[in-house]
Amino acid sequence: MSTYEPTSRTTALRKLDRMSYDRELVHSILDEAWHCTLSFVVDGEPRALPTLHARVGETVYVHGSTGSRPLLTARGGGLRVCLTVTHLDALVLARSQFNHSANYRSVAVHGVATLVTDPADKLAALTAFVEKIGPGRSAHTRPPDDKEMAQTAVLALPLTEVSARQRVGGVGDDPEDLALPYWAGLVPLRVERGVPEPDAGVTSPTPDYLF
Amino acid sequence: MSTYEPTSRTTALRKLDRMSYDRELVHSILDEAWHCTLSFVVDGEPRALPTLHARVGETVYVHGSTGSRPLLTARGGGLRVCLTVTHLDALVLARSQFNHSANYRSVAVHGVATLVTDPADKLAALTAFVEKIGPGRSAHTRPPDDKEMAQTAVLALPLTEVSARQRVGGVGDDPEDLALPYWAGLVPLRVERGVPEPDAGVTSPTPDYLF
Repeated sequence: MSTYEPTSRTTALRKLDRMSYDRELVHSILDEAWHCTLSFVVDGEPRALPTLHARVGETVYVHGSTGSRPLLTARGGGLRVCLTVTHLDALVLARSQFNHSANYRSVAVHGVATLVTDPADKLAALTAFVEKIGPGRSAHTRPPDDKEMAQTAVLALPLTEVSARQRVGGVGDDPEDLALPYWAGLVPLRVERGVPEPDAGVTSPTPDYLF
Repeated sequence: MSTYEPTSRTTALRKLDRMSYDRELVHSILDEAWHCTLSFVVDGEPRALPTLHARVGETVYVHGSTGSRPLLTARGGGLRVCLTVTHLDALVLARSQFNHSANYRSVAVHGVATLVTDPADKLAALTAFVEKIGPGRSAHTRPPDDKEMAQTAVLALPLTEVSARQRVGGVGDDPEDLALPYWAGLVPLRVERGVPEPDAGVTSPTPDYLF
């Protein structure tokens, strides 16, 4: 099936035309992003942690020290989370202040994140983080040893309750404002990679996947 | 005072050297970001909303339709939130997979967001959103009329319980890994503004603040 089933958690109250449950769109938004925000509840209060993520099939992984708050909390039966990713694609400047907006693509994943305990699954998830930088990276790095594996916790969040939300297109001024003498338009925003900066002592050439 | 007072909500469990409560640093991280993630709790479960924000002094504002979920929820006495902002500055590629990391600057603001009801305060907050694009923008746009003001809700979140967290610097490989023949270094990431794209019919020149 090519779409996720909407639920009450993934249904918007307004601007429903911005919502999508398309699996390919969700995957592309997640994969293009290096970092997400992991929101969870502690003592009834919201907490949010910016962190890196990697997707493998229909699972999103986050990782961290076994001593970090969400990973500690997830020990007992899992941690209910809302994981969000956002790309800001353009500022939208309208003639009216009210119609100023932004073009964006975002994903929200709701679910219970659980600790990955199987050693092979855990290694596969950690490998996905490294491979995300560039295909082949995991073969050109030292894999984690037992001590490092023990220090690292990995959380798995299934992609079952998922929505994408996006605004695309141009300026949405009201017809009666179109004659106003103000500049209106889009200011595109892009995340650009700069020139790689090798660490001291590195003699191997910069890998192709960094360009 | 130039720093925020740490509390249990803004104290990290680990890598304490990455934490900062410096007011100027917090302001700079918030101001450089166009968007934030607003995390809150609905029926005991985490929710997160990517949205735009603007800072004025020691207050962060978010805005939205009066019909959106957090703004509806905030009606009765305010909404407890955790507002986070993240800048990803570089991927950090180490010789060991374990020491792969990222340079980032993030801010978390904890508190109760309340609806701005005073009309002058509300207009000032909305003006701040427009002025954030460029100084003078509010004078070169049509201000909101009464109907638009009524459709817009603004939430104010005081900067009292605030922390910044950042990683800066280079690769953190273990000494025994430095001789490994793998590429290690930084890949800088930057958000770049593209060339402004005027809407159809715009005759005024592109404002200087968009370059």
